[in-house]
Amino acid sequence: MLENLKQKVYEANMLLPKYDLVTFTWGNVSEIDRESGLFVIKPSGVDYDQLQPADMVVVNLDGEVVEGEMNPSSDTPTHAYLYRTFSEIGGVVHTHSPWAVSFAQAGVDIEAFGTTHADTFYGTVPVADALTQPEVEGAYELNTGVVIEREFAKRSLNPMDVPAVLVRQHGPFTWGKDAMDAVHNAKVLEVVAEMNYHTLMLTHGDSSIPQYLLDKHYYRKHGANAYYGQDNALSHNHSTAIN
Amino acid sequence: MLENLKQKVYEANMLLPKYDLVTFTWGNVSEIDRESGLFVIKPSGVDYDQLQPADMVVVNLDGEVVEGEMNPSSDTPTHAYLYRTFSEIGGVVHTHSPWAVSFAQAGVDIEAFGTTHADTFYGTVPVADALTQPEVEGAYELNTGVVIEREFAKRSLNPMDVPAVLVRQHGPFTWGKDAMDAVHNAKVLEVVAEMNYHTLMLTHGDSSIPQYLLDKHYYRKHGANAYYGQDNALSHNHSTAIN
Amino acid sequence: MLENLKQKVYEANMLLPKYDLVTFTWGNVSEIDRESGLFVIKPSGVDYDQLQPADMVVVNLDGEVVEGEMNPSSDTPTHAYLYRTFSEIGGVVHTHSPWAVSFAQAGVDIEAFGTTHADTFYGTVPVADALTQPEVEGAYELNTGVVIEREFAKRSLNPMDVPAVLVRQHGPFTWGKDAMDAVHNAKVLEVVAEMNYHTLMLTHGDSSIPQYLLDKHYYRKHGANAYYGQDNALSHNHSTAIN
Amino acid sequence: MLENLKQKVYEANMLLPKYDLVTFTWGNVSEIDRESGLFVIKPSGVDYDQLQPADMVVVNLDGEVVEGEMNPSSDTPTHAYLYRTFSEIGGVVHTHSPWAVSFAQAGVDIEAFGTTHADTFYGTVPVADALTQPEVEGAYELNTGVVIEREFAKRSLNPMDVPAVLVRQHGPFTWGKDAMDAVHNAKVLEVVAEMNYHTLMLTHGDSSIPQYLLDKHYYRKHGANAYYGQDNALSHNHSTAIN
Repeated sequence: MLENLKQKVYEANMLLPKYDLVTFTWGNVSEIDRESGLFVIKPSGVDYDQLQPADMVVVNLDGEVVEGEMNPSSDTPTHAYLYRTFSEIGGVVHTHSPWAVSFAQAGVDIEAFGTTHADTFYGTVPVADALTQPEVEGAYELNTGVVIEREFAKRSLNPMDVPAVLVRQHGPFTWGKDAMDAVHNAKVLEVVAEMNYHTLMLTHGDSSIPQYLLDKHYYRKHGANAYYGQDNALSHNHSTAIN
Repeated sequence: MLENLKQKVYEANMLLPKYDLVTFTWGNVSEIDRESGLFVIKPSGVDYDQLQPADMVVVNLDGEVVEGEMNPSSDTPTHAYLYRTFSEIGGVVHTHSPWAVSFAQAGVDIEAFGTTHADTFYGTVPVADALTQPEVEGAYELNTGVVIEREFAKRSLNPMDVPAVLVRQHGPFTWGKDAMDAVHNAKVLEVVAEMNYHTLMLTHGDSSIPQYLLDKHYYRKHGANAYYGQDNALSHNHSTAIN
Repeated sequence: MLENLKQKVYEANMLLPKYDLVTFTWGNVSEIDRESGLFVIKPSGVDYDQLQPADMVVVNLDGEVVEGEMNPSSDTPTHAYLYRTFSEIGGVVHTHSPWAVSFAQAGVDIEAFGTTHADTFYGTVPVADALTQPEVEGAYELNTGVVIEREFAKRSLNPMDVPAVLVRQHGPFTWGKDAMDAVHNAKVLEVVAEMNYHTLMLTHGDSSIPQYLLDKHYYRKHGANAYYGQDNALSHNHSTAIN
Repeated sequence: MLENLKQKVYEANMLLPKYDLVTFTWGNVSEIDRESGLFVIKPSGVDYDQLQPADMVVVNLDGEVVEGEMNPSSDTPTHAYLYRTFSEIGGVVHTHSPWAVSFAQAGVDIEAFGTTHADTFYGTVPVADALTQPEVEGAYELNTGVVIEREFAKRSLNPMDVPAVLVRQHGPFTWGKDAMDAVHNAKVLEVVAEMNYHTLMLTHGDSSIPQYLLDKHYYRKHGANAYYGQDNALSHNHSTAIN
């Protein structure tokens, strides 16, 4: 069942250690097959060294296991919620990458300070409000999706323009058109967080770029007038992410 | 004698350079066989490149060598004291990992700022009071164990809930159900220290998480109601550490 | 056409990931053949893992493709402008290396704080003024070259003495006698930026070195009286860069 | 001539990239044969990838080449001066390792903040006063040795107790009983500098350890009562460095 997708999700998961985004088993990637309404996700707590494509778990949009012998990631209800809420996304990633976590713990948004940011994220990557005590003690992982949705609604953000969020006191979730794209965004977020940190330490002030530079760089890589890359065919150009 | 344990302790020691936790020979791992009351520890000052399982030294709870041709780690009396004092622990690790050492040198506790911390440590990882001059000039390594015990007593901490300490002006000791678990905790401590440092620089304030989030994440991985991982059988899930 | 140069430019591009200067495809290197007035540059958005010498694109000084099946780097007009403006340079590099980008985002010049800097850069590496809205919305990549030229004119800098600039809100461009030299300068800039950052955090003040130390170290490696290295023949000594 | 020593010095030089202490060719190691009064040093500006044992240059205590087809390191007069001045040392290392350089550029001493420091350096690693204009414009590399000697005299430091210095606006020199020991000290200095930086950022105050802890740790590894390691025979224990 969904063998190709399992292979894809396996490969996307294996990029997390390659890109230095995980310690131990602290990350997970999923991708959805929108036709069947099923998604494939990493099993919970399995070492990357031992992970196999066949270990991937098939789950439905209620977060129930449809196929697979292992428990899915404990964050599965968050993935399911994001797939239900953000209908255009095809892949979701969660990590504890250290720079992004530091901003999540500090409650500091990752603002667009430069073109590195603008090439991928169309504006500020928000920190979502902390979960309340009832939200933590209730359906915690599902409520993690709820606070993300709430933050995007409150700020009127399009999740395809800003495919990342920092869950307060926790860490980053990113998404994209598919699993690979979501992993790409997870890496960009970590790099951008590192650059923002050092920029903030140098200035202790606001270094936000103007809207016209944000527009320029974002639309250089995204949308109908994108001109970066090779037609999105031969290269790993991510400019098709929101086409 | 205890050949299987020597192999285990050797492998746990070799994880220290793999996890970037040691420079030169600045780390050591031991594990105890509670039935015989003997523990196995790395020899003192031997390069990881040259270390062999047969080099491991068997020591009793008074810190006396029972078998082995090499001197045991100079920190052996600290390990012995911790095994005598904390009856539930099965493995001990000491390193000079740079982020944890920085907090130990600064005398700043590693507080729970996020879920990465809460998944492993049930609250603040304390800095123990500095050893006094008589404690340093006396049985120094044994007294290092004494100040750890004193700090845990003073703060009413359960060593299985908070399996780590920073010895002031020195560095981290961690422990766990066995050597591998103690090494796992040493790595988590280093990662959490790095995240805490950057969080502190971003906020210059207190970013402690609420008790209910600490409870949620800690008990997601530990105790009877843990639901992270694969039954603790197929994976390197550490949720059995204190069962 | 220019097969040797394609090979050279390919090899120089492959040094960017080797020297930890790029994430994904965020960098490009070119080198010019001054006789023909053509330069060779990396194609846009192609992964370094998949890059081949034959993928290199031949471009004229107006930035028009002369040979090659792929789109050239989207930064090609900047390279072309720099070759037209700085007649002595033979190679150009652009990256998003994180330390240099942090200074570009903060708008903080990289001043000469030590001999590591002075060995390669004869004084401050400037941050160029941000592009104006018309400059961003017009011929953006060409205008990136314009602001670099303007900054060097305003500060009366010789581009062969200071072969690097930080484009505000964007990142570093470096150049040199050829592609390899420009890559060398890109790496030095990143290392120097890292050292400057930590120096600034330690002092919160000006740590600029005196002119006589700048002279001593710069001319130890550059010009007629250079005495570092092996006659610039057997080694990768860069002292010939501006001879 | 001195073929064994060339091999030793070659191997010690090759540890610099292995220990992440150099970028490009920015480092050099030498070792002296006290009987003949000759020392062997790396050639100037040669890539580590291409370095061969036969490339090592034999130099006398006046810094004159006695054997070898390549130019010796441009820092040779500093090495020679240190061998003439500090009669007990057998090896010298110079690098531009980034943490140590940051302190040299900032003019901030590396004080003993913990046992990691005390295990190798018996107290503060000093920043030497900057060279004056005549010193820079005169016999610069020799005068670099002069300011080191002056700083040690001014502070009444024994170079075997504190086998390292930061040359202001430049970077670290370390030494030891032989080349390997000097490289060891160069690595310890870099690690200690990194830890001190983060400690300073956390506290913004003095974290110096008391004399009795400095004594305890230093003499645990050095001198007649050292008890760390394996008799200094089987292991890379450096406790014999000043015996």
